Amino acid sequence: MRQRTHVGVVGPGDGATEEQVQRAREVGRLLALAGAVVVTGGLGGVMAAAARGCGDAGGLSLGLLPGADRADAGAPHTLTVPTGLGELRNGLLVRSSDVVVAVGPSWGTLSEVALAVRTGVPVVLLGWGTLADHLPQDAGVPAPLRAATPQDAVQLALGDRDG
Amino acid sequence: MRQRTHVGVVGPGDGATEEQVQRAREVGRLLALAGAVVVTGGLGGVMAAAARGCGDAGGLSLGLLPGADRADAGAPHTLTVPTGLGELRNGLLVRSSDVVVAVGPSWGTLSEVALAVRTGVPVVLLGWGTLADHLPQDAGVPAPLRAATPQDAVQLALGDRDG
Amino acid sequence: MRQRTHVGVVGPGDGATEEQVQRAREVGRLLALAGAVVVTGGLGGVMAAAARGCGDAGGLSLGLLPGADRADAGAPHTLTVPTGLGELRNGLLVRSSDVVVAVGPSWGTLSEVALAVRTGVPVVLLGWGTLADHLPQDAGVPAPLRAATPQDAVQLALGDRDG
Amino acid sequence: MRQRTHVGVVGPGDGATEEQVQRAREVGRLLALAGAVVVTGGLGGVMAAAARGCGDAGGLSLGLLPGADRADAGAPHTLTVPTGLGELRNGLLVRSSDVVVAVGPSWGTLSEVALAVRTGVPVVLLGWGTLADHLPQDAGVPAPLRAATPQDAVQLALGDRDG
Repeated sequence: MRQRTHVGVVGPGDGATEEQVQRAREVGRLLALAGAVVVTGGLGGVMAAAARGCGDAGGLSLGLLPGADRADAGAPHTLTVPTGLGELRNGLLVRSSDVVVAVGPSWGTLSEVALAVRTGVPVVLLGWGTLADHLPQDAGVPAPLRAATPQDAVQLALGDRDG
Repeated sequence: MRQRTHVGVVGPGDGATEEQVQRAREVGRLLALAGAVVVTGGLGGVMAAAARGCGDAGGLSLGLLPGADRADAGAPHTLTVPTGLGELRNGLLVRSSDVVVAVGPSWGTLSEVALAVRTGVPVVLLGWGTLADHLPQDAGVPAPLRAATPQDAVQLALGDRDG
Repeated sequence: MRQRTHVGVVGPGDGATEEQVQRAREVGRLLALAGAVVVTGGLGGVMAAAARGCGDAGGLSLGLLPGADRADAGAPHTLTVPTGLGELRNGLLVRSSDVVVAVGPSWGTLSEVALAVRTGVPVVLLGWGTLADHLPQDAGVPAPLRAATPQDAVQLALGDRDG
Repeated sequence: MRQRTHVGVVGPGDGATEEQVQRAREVGRLLALAGAVVVTGGLGGVMAAAARGCGDAGGLSLGLLPGADRADAGAPHTLTVPTGLGELRNGLLVRSSDVVVAVGPSWGTLSEVALAVRTGVPVVLLGWGTLADHLPQDAGVPAPLRAATPQDAVQLALGDRDG
């Protein structure tokens, strides 16, 4: 049975900029239109925006919350897992994702990008500025891809997959 | 926004009896009809049966796999989380569940029942025989409920909730 | 290099009886004398008593706390890990242990015993009463051993090992 | 009771340079002399070197292994926890540490630094080059400190603490 592609959409929470929020919503919408599942960290900012964009297009979303209370979700998700793991849920989000789209940097987001690269999960960076030029270059490890727009990011994330 | 009730359906995997498998499928089907989400450990036996029953009724299911490979799922689930946590995913399943229905005993299932009772998640036992009479009685901790049939189990699990 | 044997000592926390506390302290002391490491869940009752007994004999102890604050330890341990995992630390304790001694039943302790049996970690039960007669009997899974005294428990736990 | 300071020493594993290995060993040695506990990820490179340096000075070390087998440790540690969590043990290492010293960058190390900064655990960077100039600057989050030598790193890590 074909499994839908699960795409982690990560980025700053409450400190997200308006541009990041708009981009994340569009990324979520485009992923849903392509038939992919949107996986988020379940809180605000980029996470909530991606879930809303996914919902706009009638897609499926999964929110992996750091706390133990489902009611803490920053936006409606199809299903939620109140992990109670705190920031260790970042690693669980990476495991749950076939590919990760990171909309803008933050320390928490950087931990997810680093864990994804470390464990072989492809990463697409959207709006990472100069940090993207100075990331580690471990031998034999594919570097993150860079996207210029939400459309570009989704295309890079899904490649030839249709979701 | 109302959250759907997430119900963990747990029980023996490949060692499940035919009766346990049939009961789990019916539990999954009835939960889906009531609008609840079915959460399973993602593998075979009772887990796969509950997911199939849920799918029979067009419901939503979430499979929390012990391994890191989504392809290990024992039956189709709406969404899957390949946790890579091994048996620690039992605890994550309990956290993800508003209530747990345990279809028959096994050591793995017993760990889930114990973690649920320990953390205040209501438990319904279906087909636990004499073990149900000898479980710990910690002061102030509600004992698991006991059901005689799948219908009974779902009614006890959802109570006045409509899923 | 020879690794010291890490022995998990588990049991009721604040609800422990005076007999359980005394037995746990003696188990910890005897394990330390044999050169084994004592691993506990880091809180009160049986956990604190085992760590104190270990310390009485100058042994090494490791406390795996459910919370994120090292200061919550119920007794001095050589080293502490404030896991922040809540009850999921029960599974981590089992993984950290080459063998588990369970001093009296409780729901939390039962989850540790069940996870240990499920994952092939030998278990010694001390003072489990009739519950020990009604535990699951999964095909091919060794049943927990039963001890009558702390001396008996340590001997069963370490077998031919010298710690 | 005073708790020893637990210091995470992180950095590249098998891909570590000779300079990183030498620095990590000296960091481990100096931490042990100051009475601190050295916490590592349990494998090779910087991790093994820090544990060896700690052992050179008779200190206590804790190895948090990604796998489930204690025998995978890259160097002797006083105590080991075979977490079976894979790269999620990076987050557990951060939780176990009162402060983190990062000897050189790698993707895995970056995940630990990011999780530490994100969760308020002080970080000291040793030998991070230009990456240190381009890290995220989240509002209200203290940036990592930068050290020039192992002595400098240990002094920054322990501050006024004596271990």
